[in-house]
Amino acid sequence: MKLILIGFGVVGQGFAEILRDKGLELQRKHNFAAQIIGVVTVSKGTLYHSSGLEIPSLLEAAAGGSFDNYPTQPGLRRDLTAGDMIGAREADALVEVSPTNLETAQPALEYCHQALDAGLHLTLANKGPVALDYANLRAKARDKGVQMRYEATVMAGTPTMHLAEDALAGCAIRSARGILNGTTNYILTQMETGMSYDDALAQAQELGYAETDPRGDVEGWDAAGKLLILGNALFGRSFALADLDVSGITKISAGDITAAKAAGQRYKLIASVTPAGGSVKATRLPLDDPLASVGGSTNAITLETDLMGDITLIGAGAGKLETGYAILSDLMAIKRTAH
Amino acid sequence: MKLILIGFGVVGQGFAEILRDKGLELQRKHNFAAQIIGVVTVSKGTLYHSSGLEIPSLLEAAAGGSFDNYPTQPGLRRDLTAGDMIGAREADALVEVSPTNLETAQPALEYCHQALDAGLHLTLANKGPVALDYANLRAKARDKGVQMRYEATVMAGTPTMHLAEDALAGCAIRSARGILNGTTNYILTQMETGMSYDDALAQAQELGYAETDPRGDVEGWDAAGKLLILGNALFGRSFALADLDVSGITKISAGDITAAKAAGQRYKLIASVTPAGGSVKATRLPLDDPLASVGGSTNAITLETDLMGDITLIGAGAGKLETGYAILSDLMAIKRTAH
Repeated sequence: MKLILIGFGVVGQGFAEILRDKGLELQRKHNFAAQIIGVVTVSKGTLYHSSGLEIPSLLEAAAGGSFDNYPTQPGLRRDLTAGDMIGAREADALVEVSPTNLETAQPALEYCHQALDAGLHLTLANKGPVALDYANLRAKARDKGVQMRYEATVMAGTPTMHLAEDALAGCAIRSARGILNGTTNYILTQMETGMSYDDALAQAQELGYAETDPRGDVEGWDAAGKLLILGNALFGRSFALADLDVSGITKISAGDITAAKAAGQRYKLIASVTPAGGSVKATRLPLDDPLASVGGSTNAITLETDLMGDITLIGAGAGKLETGYAILSDLMAIKRTAH
Repeated sequence: MKLILIGFGVVGQGFAEILRDKGLELQRKHNFAAQIIGVVTVSKGTLYHSSGLEIPSLLEAAAGGSFDNYPTQPGLRRDLTAGDMIGAREADALVEVSPTNLETAQPALEYCHQALDAGLHLTLANKGPVALDYANLRAKARDKGVQMRYEATVMAGTPTMHLAEDALAGCAIRSARGILNGTTNYILTQMETGMSYDDALAQAQELGYAETDPRGDVEGWDAAGKLLILGNALFGRSFALADLDVSGITKISAGDITAAKAAGQRYKLIASVTPAGGSVKATRLPLDDPLASVGGSTNAITLETDLMGDITLIGAGAGKLETGYAILSDLMAIKRTAH
């Protein structure tokens, strides 16, 4: 399987590290072999070699901040655009791991359409295209007889989409509700130990869970982006951010946490979606709700189904290898199911 | 997909009800269509029609206790054995849903080998063959280019095996630990409310969770059978029951439960397996363990992986539709991935 990567940040590098470290095992156990033939980045440069880039050299060059340090070899191109690489029709799949833009989804969205038009499979960690243009991408993938997968966009490599779209394909899913943002769950968990919101946020920032500008997390927008994807994928609806009722955890005080605790309950930032709409809201859960036991930066989702009742999946929601693994799991699923 | 069912008890009927009620939807949404062409039972008789049995009539006849009431029609056979049906080579898959025998796995095991030899795919709810002869069945399926799946054997249709074998295929799984028996979990949950072991068991029997002879559940053997399957499937090991350290919940007193509660812990019957061995043991868990929050007859499993850390799945562990769904999910996976 020959791959073009758009973006080579944390997710792309995590995926490349997995291929470097587990490539032989994947080939031996699953007859799965992947080659990165192209990488396009804004800040590090661009590399293409139709017989495959060397992953250790690629990772080293990326660690140094520029592909200029990737060793020159016959056939290597440093001047191709994403469009050139897709147009060359040597790749089997496009791996979209550039940063999410929830306003326009560009430039990723254009690359995704180009890739599908050219008959490439598509896997994304970038939430933008799946959140904003799901229906068109899905229809185009179907027309072209290729697959579009996006496990990484919700709960990293914890197999939420595999669960909903493959394992539970024969069930009707009625609703999804989950803890889809690790930063806010970490903050709420720390506040339960008596920490103030500000101190818990500062600690999350120190640990690298929260960004310097934490609004995307604490105001609920990160979870809302994931909710759009779930709404699109589970219900075939095209929700917009404006259709969701989004609030975050910024108004939750230490007193609220204490009051909930006294009542045998626990605050969680719950993202939930049904065919009728969705919301992201700090919610008091009884302790026997499986989501109530999910602490720290862990994520979880409960799918309500017709035949199986509630199914809950708990796992990592972020991380270099954890998100890189999502890309691998998508590509392995594509190989397993492509006819 | 033409199917032969061995057995037509709760699981077989649950599966047939799903086909009856969701057949059109499955065909429309997933291009999945299944026909039951043969059913073999010990107590109700035997039916075969190469162009498909009528599911509503089949369910009605089963409800009446005998296939004698199934309407006679041209081409219908009431005299074929399982071997005859498999030998006719008109079916695509064998569905083994007869009762589990953990001593010999027979007669199911022989049917399974016959089916694989004849190039049929195989899906089982019967734990015996997968627990006792996994390696041979797996090797034969590979040789014949067909699939063997057994989602129903562990946690009913909660997609444990889909998770471990498909979604997490690219991870190495280091251990599995779970609540694999709903009856004992129900009893322990009731004991937390102050009920005695005997009263909780009596209540579980009244509700149909526990059998009149409850030893298979409360002494841990049902969970141990599932653990053999997990050991076989996850680690490619051929454990025998004698290799597992099995004890149940019969020695847990109300006092033990109270003492655990006072220490902020909770007793669960935990089945765990690693490549080195396995055990089924009543275990005190801290309340922040995701398994501790699993109450009533619900089941759960935590898979410890190299790339994804711990992944926990919580869902139904029994039930007519829930186990019937496992068969459907296996057949859909076979269709999705058969090349």
